[in-house]
Amino acid sequence: MTKKPLFQTIGVIGKQQDTEALETLKILRDALLQQNRTLLLEEQTASLLPGHSFSVKPMPELAACSELIIVIGGDGNLLNAARALSLSKTPVLGIHRGHLGFLTDIHPTALEEELLEVLSGQYYQEKRFLLSLRIEHQGKVTATGNALNEVLLSHGSVSKMIEFEVYIDEQFVYSERSDGLITATPTGSTAYALSADGPILHPSLDAIVLVPLCPHTLSSRPIVVEGNRRIKLVPSAHNKVYPKVSCDSQIVFPTVPGDEIHIEKQKGHLNLIHPKRYCYFKTLRNKLHWGRKL
Amino acid sequence: MTKKPLFQTIGVIGKQQDTEALETLKILRDALLQQNRTLLLEEQTASLLPGHSFSVKPMPELAACSELIIVIGGDGNLLNAARALSLSKTPVLGIHRGHLGFLTDIHPTALEEELLEVLSGQYYQEKRFLLSLRIEHQGKVTATGNALNEVLLSHGSVSKMIEFEVYIDEQFVYSERSDGLITATPTGSTAYALSADGPILHPSLDAIVLVPLCPHTLSSRPIVVEGNRRIKLVPSAHNKVYPKVSCDSQIVFPTVPGDEIHIEKQKGHLNLIHPKRYCYFKTLRNKLHWGRKL
Amino acid sequence: MTKKPLFQTIGVIGKQQDTEALETLKILRDALLQQNRTLLLEEQTASLLPGHSFSVKPMPELAACSELIIVIGGDGNLLNAARALSLSKTPVLGIHRGHLGFLTDIHPTALEEELLEVLSGQYYQEKRFLLSLRIEHQGKVTATGNALNEVLLSHGSVSKMIEFEVYIDEQFVYSERSDGLITATPTGSTAYALSADGPILHPSLDAIVLVPLCPHTLSSRPIVVEGNRRIKLVPSAHNKVYPKVSCDSQIVFPTVPGDEIHIEKQKGHLNLIHPKRYCYFKTLRNKLHWGRKL
Amino acid sequence: MTKKPLFQTIGVIGKQQDTEALETLKILRDALLQQNRTLLLEEQTASLLPGHSFSVKPMPELAACSELIIVIGGDGNLLNAARALSLSKTPVLGIHRGHLGFLTDIHPTALEEELLEVLSGQYYQEKRFLLSLRIEHQGKVTATGNALNEVLLSHGSVSKMIEFEVYIDEQFVYSERSDGLITATPTGSTAYALSADGPILHPSLDAIVLVPLCPHTLSSRPIVVEGNRRIKLVPSAHNKVYPKVSCDSQIVFPTVPGDEIHIEKQKGHLNLIHPKRYCYFKTLRNKLHWGRKL
Repeated sequence: MTKKPLFQTIGVIGKQQDTEALETLKILRDALLQQNRTLLLEEQTASLLPGHSFSVKPMPELAACSELIIVIGGDGNLLNAARALSLSKTPVLGIHRGHLGFLTDIHPTALEEELLEVLSGQYYQEKRFLLSLRIEHQGKVTATGNALNEVLLSHGSVSKMIEFEVYIDEQFVYSERSDGLITATPTGSTAYALSADGPILHPSLDAIVLVPLCPHTLSSRPIVVEGNRRIKLVPSAHNKVYPKVSCDSQIVFPTVPGDEIHIEKQKGHLNLIHPKRYCYFKTLRNKLHWGRKL
Repeated sequence: MTKKPLFQTIGVIGKQQDTEALETLKILRDALLQQNRTLLLEEQTASLLPGHSFSVKPMPELAACSELIIVIGGDGNLLNAARALSLSKTPVLGIHRGHLGFLTDIHPTALEEELLEVLSGQYYQEKRFLLSLRIEHQGKVTATGNALNEVLLSHGSVSKMIEFEVYIDEQFVYSERSDGLITATPTGSTAYALSADGPILHPSLDAIVLVPLCPHTLSSRPIVVEGNRRIKLVPSAHNKVYPKVSCDSQIVFPTVPGDEIHIEKQKGHLNLIHPKRYCYFKTLRNKLHWGRKL
Repeated sequence: MTKKPLFQTIGVIGKQQDTEALETLKILRDALLQQNRTLLLEEQTASLLPGHSFSVKPMPELAACSELIIVIGGDGNLLNAARALSLSKTPVLGIHRGHLGFLTDIHPTALEEELLEVLSGQYYQEKRFLLSLRIEHQGKVTATGNALNEVLLSHGSVSKMIEFEVYIDEQFVYSERSDGLITATPTGSTAYALSADGPILHPSLDAIVLVPLCPHTLSSRPIVVEGNRRIKLVPSAHNKVYPKVSCDSQIVFPTVPGDEIHIEKQKGHLNLIHPKRYCYFKTLRNKLHWGRKL
Repeated sequence: MTKKPLFQTIGVIGKQQDTEALETLKILRDALLQQNRTLLLEEQTASLLPGHSFSVKPMPELAACSELIIVIGGDGNLLNAARALSLSKTPVLGIHRGHLGFLTDIHPTALEEELLEVLSGQYYQEKRFLLSLRIEHQGKVTATGNALNEVLLSHGSVSKMIEFEVYIDEQFVYSERSDGLITATPTGSTAYALSADGPILHPSLDAIVLVPLCPHTLSSRPIVVEGNRRIKLVPSAHNKVYPKVSCDSQIVFPTVPGDEIHIEKQKGHLNLIHPKRYCYFKTLRNKLHWGRKL
């Protein structure tokens, strides 16, 4: 922990339609003003504070103008911000709304104390990589996206199994009939992939995990590969439904027969800020009811 | 195996748009005529044999007029027929198209030999129960259906978790956030439920299994209850998507907030016919690559 | 709930070397005396109360002389008692020592209140069946045992896979190389079998579940069969270790090549008493951290 | 593939008491002599070829004197050799006895053809790291070992759960009651860890996976961490059995209360040789019955 920036200008992103988050937003505003910080509000967030006098910026510009971004809400809100901000280097801090998240780890009641610590340089920073998604049709890129947690190929409807081939670095791995396939980062390994029985990847591990969703082949298992591997999924032309591709379960792309889905590590990453007392394993223990010290 | 019926009149259901199945249909027709049986064709099946001179019947009437129903196709075709025929007592025999099914167990190449055995009374018959589905809104029934394999409650779209409560005989079991819940019969325990990591229930067991789909609560497990239990699922009013309910992944029902999904054993059952050499465990071994005798 | 016995004579079984259990034993003694009940002490339990003046009985006689047996301790203590008492019809009530069990559901602090209810006929009784174990060598019975939770065939040492064949009602099911196989009752389905990824069987279900332990064949799955099925396990003659068979992880039997392990439902059953407020699903929710009502 | 060594001197290790392996050993001997190679026999292997005239070496010296080691047998034989040879840099090639292994991938019938290719420099070489094990008691090392597949902490007997704490880089992770814990390399991820429901780690991934064995806490999941992490396991002083530690299920160490088990990546690695046509994913597809190209 060498010399730290002072976070003079701070961009704030709040959750819409959530009274608890609004309460926290106001406390945050007051705390930042008291610390003589300059506040910037994300466009939609600004509408939550009618009559305010702060500068308002759309998402990508917000990151460019801020030295720190603070997101108030659940992990879903931070995912959303992370995808938009992934090419900036501005660090991001998450404040949850009462339920500990894997990404948003400041509790509203500890906001002022822990915020002060962060602003004084007492924090822990880590890099979280994202996945970039590229859908190609006959060699042409037809859609692109990115994901902090996972890219999901799925039937996108009611349990019609889909069939597809999986390639890693252009090497054929297997074909599968299933509800779909999750391609997750270490960050995403404790999200949807965990519900689908995937392993937990430590956030510092440079790896990607493929987790099958209700595979017809019962010997299918999650596969963990190096982070720089290039994943390619090729849906069969004979699926009864057109599979869909989604990023962090928030952005959805349709496919058509002949599409190839390319997934690889994105350039740039999220600079995630944690309060000093952060401990990854403690978060796991709390959220998964794991056993404490004997 | 007491005295057996002679199966004089036989209803035949074929698979659409499948040249292999059509081939099998013709062989079956010839074999039945040679045995002096009376053939009845299901309506859509009739269109596969232009210029034929057999009687044609719509699905429910077909069962009423036949002493045996023969279905050509995959397990999906037999599921379809089973739901339609579940209130009749007419036995059903399945002929697959090259890939052994759990329900369709006569191989096309063994058709003539094994058919002859069945027609001479050399067969094995078992009862398979179905589930009845009833969706209620404020006490009124808004939709009904039935299923031989499973009733599925699911998000019906792209991995938006849904939240719902589960009741058994009106006793609250748990609430869950997940991709959905499979309620399966023993017959369905080797279908979709198996891909979702459910246990195998022997077909003679009078039981229903609840299998969670990608549950957020990692300690969720399949629950097996007696066949006469009444299952009730109550989706939360706050789901971001309106969950869907499907029967055997073939019939889909939308829901609206306030709906209650009731699932219980249906009156009546499928009388499934197997060739003499049928062995349930052998089918399992073959399909799941289990170990043979040492 | 028709007319209930008064439980005049009550046999008490306590846990050895456990100060908490001893405390509970004394409270129980006082409460029973105040209710003018006749106390009988199990032999070893008697040594926990030096200078007492109660009759002392060895285990099987205790059941014959008592109208109710009360076990103080964890589920393990009740398992132990249940195996010994399984041929008597005397009902059994469990008092745990602070951690809710699946079988011992009276909390020490609620002891007096709930005991009074039970003694006044306010209780819930259910039957739990046991498994009987019979090891045969060349047709001769060489060992017998019984189990309330499960019979386990295992390597009994350090992860040397063992190979064995499984038969149900003399029908060959599969051969497997694994760490072993759990054959569990519904009662046992929430014990060791659950840790091995078996399904939960409702206690009222008349069924047995086979759960493989770390199977080499990845498509192995738990199999649930009717309670009256006869299971036979035949270890290969070529195992590198001699497998062991255990009942409820408490009684261990060695095997030798050529042994056959026979498991079936035992005649008689455990009459398990629960306090009025008992709810099976609530116990599951509490122990497995499942979601409460929305 | 730059200039390759010529493998002039070749050490050979055969499997004991296996007629098939002996047959293969003789074919290998003849093929190597025809190619004018110098043969060295491992001590025990030498006894399989009475009257031979080759030099005989004990295991560690064999590696020092050879430019290539060839192991005939199953994966178990190669594991055994790998542990002994792990500090040498001599490459190792495996010939199986009819059943494809993950480590021994030359089939006896292709022996001569593929051997010729390897000897002419047509091969594929990869590094597989091992784990080193160190048991400490009150700060003193009481035992050491190494493992190519996995280090296993287990009850070492009949399903008595053991309790222990897990630390990674001295950070407390969780405490667990279970049958044990597997700490596996990517190589070991397709061995015992896979049977215990661990994920598959690509052999080129620098990572270690912790896989729980029948954990009492149902939300336990495999955890994948970077290869340079140091794992520490601390069994509880209150276990009913003294846990055992084993390496590749071949070497077993007892523990006593107070022992700490330290596991980390070993210096040095196995240089594993594959024939030209080797494809990791193809081996997976073959062994796990995964789907081929559509």
